[in-house]
Amino acid sequence: MYAHALIPFKPKNPKTRLSDILSLDERETFARAMLEDVIFAVRDALCSPVVVGTELFDSEDVQITVPDADLNKTLNQILPESIGPLLIIMADLPLANREAIHQVIRSESDMAIVPGRGGGTNVIYLKEPQRFHVEYYGTSFLSHMRIAQEAGLSCEVIDSFRLHTDIDEKEDLVEVLLHGSGKSRACLESLGFVLTTEKGRVGVERKR
Amino acid sequence: MYAHALIPFKPKNPKTRLSDILSLDERETFARAMLEDVIFAVRDALCSPVVVGTELFDSEDVQITVPDADLNKTLNQILPESIGPLLIIMADLPLANREAIHQVIRSESDMAIVPGRGGGTNVIYLKEPQRFHVEYYGTSFLSHMRIAQEAGLSCEVIDSFRLHTDIDEKEDLVEVLLHGSGKSRACLESLGFVLTTEKGRVGVERKR
Repeated sequence: MYAHALIPFKPKNPKTRLSDILSLDERETFARAMLEDVIFAVRDALCSPVVVGTELFDSEDVQITVPDADLNKTLNQILPESIGPLLIIMADLPLANREAIHQVIRSESDMAIVPGRGGGTNVIYLKEPQRFHVEYYGTSFLSHMRIAQEAGLSCEVIDSFRLHTDIDEKEDLVEVLLHGSGKSRACLESLGFVLTTEKGRVGVERKR
Repeated sequence: MYAHALIPFKPKNPKTRLSDILSLDERETFARAMLEDVIFAVRDALCSPVVVGTELFDSEDVQITVPDADLNKTLNQILPESIGPLLIIMADLPLANREAIHQVIRSESDMAIVPGRGGGTNVIYLKEPQRFHVEYYGTSFLSHMRIAQEAGLSCEVIDSFRLHTDIDEKEDLVEVLLHGSGKSRACLESLGFVLTTEKGRVGVERKR
């Protein structure tokens, strides 16, 4: 195994920006499907997934339960105690695959990062986790680049649309239906989602 | 030089989906800046840029002037007559860089493709252009995958967020300000655009 992979996950009331088109139950099912796709990719890249959340959920995966819902506080407690290289990967990246994760963990720099859409951070790889701390939310990509520089860590920005594409809004579902091959896509299809084209622009709609 | 790179470009009234925040003149200036960033990246990857449009514009770049504004018709007249490998790259990819283009043109498959956001096609690389025809608009990514299969061409999907990120809407400008380093970013900055964070989400606003 190359590295442990921390996957922060919120099983209850996830993905609220999809509330217009998915019920609470459906959002929980879809979030879980995305998590499973990420876990599959992580394993396929020979890393060990560790799901991090405030509550246990029914799963055979390795889980860490933390008292605090604050992602930064949680991770910044784990990082100083980590031994060996560490991957932190978000649970809403259903297009993740082995090749993309390999690109990250094979970086020759001290750390590697994949920006999310809109300035977020989707993946961080740390060869020496105890030298770094996280600062998610807002333009966390810029924050993490600054923290790396302050810590004297060389940092490679990995160019991957599969890891760049976090799924938050209705229009993002287009990418899952187009480029996904795992449980998230199957989940959307079973809920009746199909691609549509209107005035040359592609969207999704629910057939039933 | 590895390949000719066709860059379709519309100098007049481009990027209409940015009309709310940019005047006609500003849109033309910004589109031109993006084109120049693409041309720079193409040259940096040792390819020869050829700008394809319905009218000449003031530039020292190699230009082909075509009578028809229909992108498909235009390219499908050029493809059968092309000798040697060909790159077709859109003009609205200001994050393009040498490494990403190299990933495309070093594909071992008969062709390589980079999907755009929402099912479009941002880059196509063809080792034998005369065996392919294009079908832009709508879910052109799926169309191009089908055409490749029908033509018996192996096709690699290149995983690059730099080439995946086409700039059409206001929220896309965030990516230029965050990850751009060329004329497009300088153009936006000179027009007064800055990053903003509201409720944890990042956007742009115009300061003056």
